[in-house]
Amino acid sequence: MTKGHVFSTGNEVLLGDIVDTNSAFLCRQLKCLGVTVIKTSAVPDDMAALVKEIKSIASSADVCVMTGGLGPTSDDLTTQALAQAAGVELAMDDEAMRSMKKFFDKRGFDLTPANEKQAILPKGARFMENLHGTAPGFSIRIGNCRFFCMPGVPREMERMFDLNVRPRLKQITGDAAEIQVIRLTVFGMHEARVGDALTGFSKQFPEIHLGFRIRFPMIEVKLSQSKEAVSQDQRDSDDDSRMNQARQWVKKRIGSNLVSDQGLTLAEEVGRLLATRGHTLSVAESCTGGLVAHLVTDVPGASDYFLFSATTYANSAKEAILNVAHETLENNGAVDETTALEMATGVKTAGGSDWAVSTTGIAGPSGGSEEKPVGTVCIGVAGPLGAHSQRFMLDSGDRGRNKQLFAAMALEMLRRELVKK
Amino acid sequence: MTKGHVFSTGNEVLLGDIVDTNSAFLCRQLKCLGVTVIKTSAVPDDMAALVKEIKSIASSADVCVMTGGLGPTSDDLTTQALAQAAGVELAMDDEAMRSMKKFFDKRGFDLTPANEKQAILPKGARFMENLHGTAPGFSIRIGNCRFFCMPGVPREMERMFDLNVRPRLKQITGDAAEIQVIRLTVFGMHEARVGDALTGFSKQFPEIHLGFRIRFPMIEVKLSQSKEAVSQDQRDSDDDSRMNQARQWVKKRIGSNLVSDQGLTLAEEVGRLLATRGHTLSVAESCTGGLVAHLVTDVPGASDYFLFSATTYANSAKEAILNVAHETLENNGAVDETTALEMATGVKTAGGSDWAVSTTGIAGPSGGSEEKPVGTVCIGVAGPLGAHSQRFMLDSGDRGRNKQLFAAMALEMLRRELVKK
Repeated sequence: MTKGHVFSTGNEVLLGDIVDTNSAFLCRQLKCLGVTVIKTSAVPDDMAALVKEIKSIASSADVCVMTGGLGPTSDDLTTQALAQAAGVELAMDDEAMRSMKKFFDKRGFDLTPANEKQAILPKGARFMENLHGTAPGFSIRIGNCRFFCMPGVPREMERMFDLNVRPRLKQITGDAAEIQVIRLTVFGMHEARVGDALTGFSKQFPEIHLGFRIRFPMIEVKLSQSKEAVSQDQRDSDDDSRMNQARQWVKKRIGSNLVSDQGLTLAEEVGRLLATRGHTLSVAESCTGGLVAHLVTDVPGASDYFLFSATTYANSAKEAILNVAHETLENNGAVDETTALEMATGVKTAGGSDWAVSTTGIAGPSGGSEEKPVGTVCIGVAGPLGAHSQRFMLDSGDRGRNKQLFAAMALEMLRRELVKK
Repeated sequence: MTKGHVFSTGNEVLLGDIVDTNSAFLCRQLKCLGVTVIKTSAVPDDMAALVKEIKSIASSADVCVMTGGLGPTSDDLTTQALAQAAGVELAMDDEAMRSMKKFFDKRGFDLTPANEKQAILPKGARFMENLHGTAPGFSIRIGNCRFFCMPGVPREMERMFDLNVRPRLKQITGDAAEIQVIRLTVFGMHEARVGDALTGFSKQFPEIHLGFRIRFPMIEVKLSQSKEAVSQDQRDSDDDSRMNQARQWVKKRIGSNLVSDQGLTLAEEVGRLLATRGHTLSVAESCTGGLVAHLVTDVPGASDYFLFSATTYANSAKEAILNVAHETLENNGAVDETTALEMATGVKTAGGSDWAVSTTGIAGPSGGSEEKPVGTVCIGVAGPLGAHSQRFMLDSGDRGRNKQLFAAMALEMLRRELVKK
């Protein structure tokens, strides 16, 4: 096992001024390359803290990818800290200097003394070119650990990783380490319930790791296995593979709450079902305020099946655009099963689509009543063979999350109709 | 100085499956409370790694805020690891059990054995209630360090932090440390350009910390100052305060790209302007697919001014619902300034509103042409005194981000018209 450490530096991280997206990127890349990330950490721009953490990493990891602190200003201390931890001198690196000059010449700028400082690297370090900025990267071995130092600007870092770090890590780990992953999407069950339903998994499949991730309001079940654990035979016949057996086992336990055994979101699965059938969709929204349409159209290729949506907050718009009867609204109110039904059939006609789904409810924080409290939502689905609607009570205590819940429930009702046909 | 450590646990962090936004949130909060964050770290769901890191933190920090691993499943090890590091037993916590029962009763669910496991805490731990989920939090002292353990779901964590952790940290650091913060929202400038525009700030206001945060596609400029740095006189007269002078200085430098000097988002500021005027809004969307309406209706109270939106992917819907002329679509195509204009005036009439905004463009990844490449968007705004439209080229290389950019630009065009009146 190659043990990896992902290390960020910089006051802006510790002050919470930026979200450290570099670490997630690097963890993902290392995993794909067969490096097991045993820890991530971040320390401020402080020489003592940097040197201490570098020494600790050098004694525990085989590989460290490190970002930040390579800039031209006085608080950029990475190079110095690595030299100190390695016990080597600093020296001007000719290759780094040439590369930086080229970068500046190309843009017609002059090198400043502050920039020249950036070409000074620890002795014995191996320079890595930065195609998108001035801060040169480098790698250096300390103890048994190889450190790869990259700039903190995500675009510069990602490009440098691709060109310089990835090929060298591949040499270290070899290709065999890559991991097989299966994802399944679940909606309508709490995380604990999913966990209960899958009790006994690790007894049945001890070689497969079972993980959960909340992608609110969905839950993703993830099965993963390193390629080393899979024999050549098993890889050749996918149907009989242990991973596939595990997938089937999970599907059976989750039952009708399984949205996708390919890890698709509700909107992606609905889109896939519509596209497979060559059918089209329109949407009528009230309380979800455009979110259903937004989720549907976030899927690339949605224009093949999505035709039209109307967000009708005002009752007048429900009547004029969706042809909801004035009496329905007067007698039952906007948040009502009959209203939802008429919205769905109305938008199906207006959009000229095969299918339609509608939402009307109370997302909060205000607008609730005793009879129809915040969290009440009525959803209608209209299809080629008819229409129906249903009332739900789904309060999460938060307007934004209620919109997410209502929209997901609308897509789920539609999905259940689509799989029937 | 109170030294803080922000500690995340969970395979999903180390595998790069999620971006750890909790740490940035917690770093920001600790800073505001006067705690100096000396390190952040993350380790996987592995008992040995957890115990080792907890012991290391206990010997270096005064306070540790820790997230994740409190769920009901077998890979949730936080409670056990803390008990082991503290050298205490685990025991059922009555208060935690009562709280969880209340949570389930309210929703009409039964407690499962997996959930009951969650009420087991290290002996001597102090329970912290979770209002939005089942995983109870707790705090426990190990060595000289007070650990606050919270769930990893951001919303549950943030609420628990507010209710339970913040007040206790205030006791530890004292009130004096609390910080005054001013936020300003900027749209339409790159981060580097915002930085350039504010060069010289720290010379002018050495006692005020200047920070940036990307809230894509907006940028937030944050001015902060510890209360200690502000004399009583200055606090009493807000208008003349240094913080207010700094706010004015920043506003002048940012100019018309400033969305809000109160830190409001584009949708919040547009909503505020509409509500102030007693005006109403309708929206016609194509490429943004419901996102403009979704952003507008995410603001509590949006029903006071938002009337109607139509997402018209199909040209037939643009004609039928928005009354866009058949000739316009035939001669100019869907992505065109005239089409955008007719969509805006059409939806204003259909919705019966004072204002309307429209989007039509190509979010990608496919659908682009040489003349109209991916990233092209035409936006129309119609108001009480007329309508106009404009073409933009805003490609970020990603469908989802393009939708965000297009929607923000539409709200920005509307905002600029609203502030004119």
